[in-house]
Amino acid sequence: MDTIAYVSGSFVPLSQANVSILDRGFLFADGIYEVAAVLDGKLIDNVSHLARLERSVGEIALKLPETTARIQEIQKELVARNKLVSGLVYLQVTRGADKGRDFAFPKGDVKPTLIMFTSEKEILNAPSARTGISVITVPDIRWSRRDIKSVGLLAQVLAKQAAVEAGAAEAWMVEDVFVTEGASSSAFILSQDDVIVTRPNSNAILPGCTRKAVVALAEEHRLGIEERPFSVAEALAAKEVFITSASLFVQPVIAIDGKSIGSGRPGAMATRLREIYIDFAKATAV
Amino acid sequence: MDTIAYVSGSFVPLSQANVSILDRGFLFADGIYEVAAVLDGKLIDNVSHLARLERSVGEIALKLPETTARIQEIQKELVARNKLVSGLVYLQVTRGADKGRDFAFPKGDVKPTLIMFTSEKEILNAPSARTGISVITVPDIRWSRRDIKSVGLLAQVLAKQAAVEAGAAEAWMVEDVFVTEGASSSAFILSQDDVIVTRPNSNAILPGCTRKAVVALAEEHRLGIEERPFSVAEALAAKEVFITSASLFVQPVIAIDGKSIGSGRPGAMATRLREIYIDFAKATAV
Repeated sequence: MDTIAYVSGSFVPLSQANVSILDRGFLFADGIYEVAAVLDGKLIDNVSHLARLERSVGEIALKLPETTARIQEIQKELVARNKLVSGLVYLQVTRGADKGRDFAFPKGDVKPTLIMFTSEKEILNAPSARTGISVITVPDIRWSRRDIKSVGLLAQVLAKQAAVEAGAAEAWMVEDVFVTEGASSSAFILSQDDVIVTRPNSNAILPGCTRKAVVALAEEHRLGIEERPFSVAEALAAKEVFITSASLFVQPVIAIDGKSIGSGRPGAMATRLREIYIDFAKATAV
Repeated sequence: MDTIAYVSGSFVPLSQANVSILDRGFLFADGIYEVAAVLDGKLIDNVSHLARLERSVGEIALKLPETTARIQEIQKELVARNKLVSGLVYLQVTRGADKGRDFAFPKGDVKPTLIMFTSEKEILNAPSARTGISVITVPDIRWSRRDIKSVGLLAQVLAKQAAVEAGAAEAWMVEDVFVTEGASSSAFILSQDDVIVTRPNSNAILPGCTRKAVVALAEEHRLGIEERPFSVAEALAAKEVFITSASLFVQPVIAIDGKSIGSGRPGAMATRLREIYIDFAKATAV
């Protein structure tokens, strides 16, 4: 069934939602995106997503074509038009379509492109939350501004495809023996002495919104947590491993590169953090 | 005036040349491009461009939707339809538009997108070939597979914009004191003892088609040439500096970061290589 998408001011059927081949998102990956989860028809942690959107566009000197307040209105209208109960709202802003192709920013008054679409997805009762997922490791070959949520995602595409071909659900990217993050998720371990460990924000990783919320919630619940890089070897020897993302919330990892973690089943901490996050998500949904 | 573009099988006015917002070129920079120059209505060094296209798509496991022979036919038809005498043919292939957004390759039968458009450009008598250009240097922040001509070009966009803001025409990207290449060109110097120096091909740079031709032509003309990395300091102390690209051919560089090179005017070697390249281009045009 055709859903409704949003393209720079208009709500149109997704099958007719197009951009110019001159759009700088298409020609140069000159754009930024965000994905927010929807539960019970409401946006989850959208304040964080819009704050990160503003930060990302600022880092590449791209001006949003709408205020974030208006963007949220459009997100909500799209959710309503598509009667979306559980799923995702994807949004992308690019530096627009100029008359031709020139690497430098458009000189004239070229309006940035803003597009959105939704997709249905089971989030609360995702089977993988119960079974856990497997990850593989791949070299992190990305650029050095991974803190910018740009649509330049080919490295992540190749990483995720390698995971799928290996029968895994996610690829962890590794640099200098340390895990940076997953292709589309943040990486966590629980050490044998019950300390939650995740890499601190820097140019080396995306500042995950769910990561941020989980770190704050762990602190609030007085769980031991430490932000520092960890190696693949440390992850393999960990008590638990898990990932976070806007669409997966908290998901237990049961194997890395085919080697079982702990008992080989989802751990108690990942399960608890998932519950804590779901409570937070529901309480702050808009 | 609206020109004609090509979009996956159809010739359409550029103003109506669109792709889906689900196109993986738009969502993930999951695509490859090539730019070939046109002189006297003929394609320059297109064999090299199509060979590089095949190599790039192979590196990301993307299957061309047409044979390269057919792609050249389309290029030529587009040049003819637009009555293009001097300019460029841009082509881009992406992994197509799936029904939704998933990092991994589409599982079903999703046809890759192939688009092309042309632009008019003075190439033979470009004023910058007579006056020379200025470049600035910026850190090379790109991913580690720069040999793949992907549309993930945000780092190059930011580099080129920095150049424009500094009153320069190109940005040289620098890694570990060595110049990798320009944002959209290959970098050359002529040492004080008349040896042409350019960085060897590797994952660190794009294998430039014009670079390749110029290296071969220099050897053919028994000019001293050495493929090795060179530093910014070495370039500043060089006799001459120049760049090559499909759309610029050979262009003298007269200043780096505001510091004059040699006499501060286009050098004899750059001028000679430009003439040699133009002869080659005309002789091999199709």
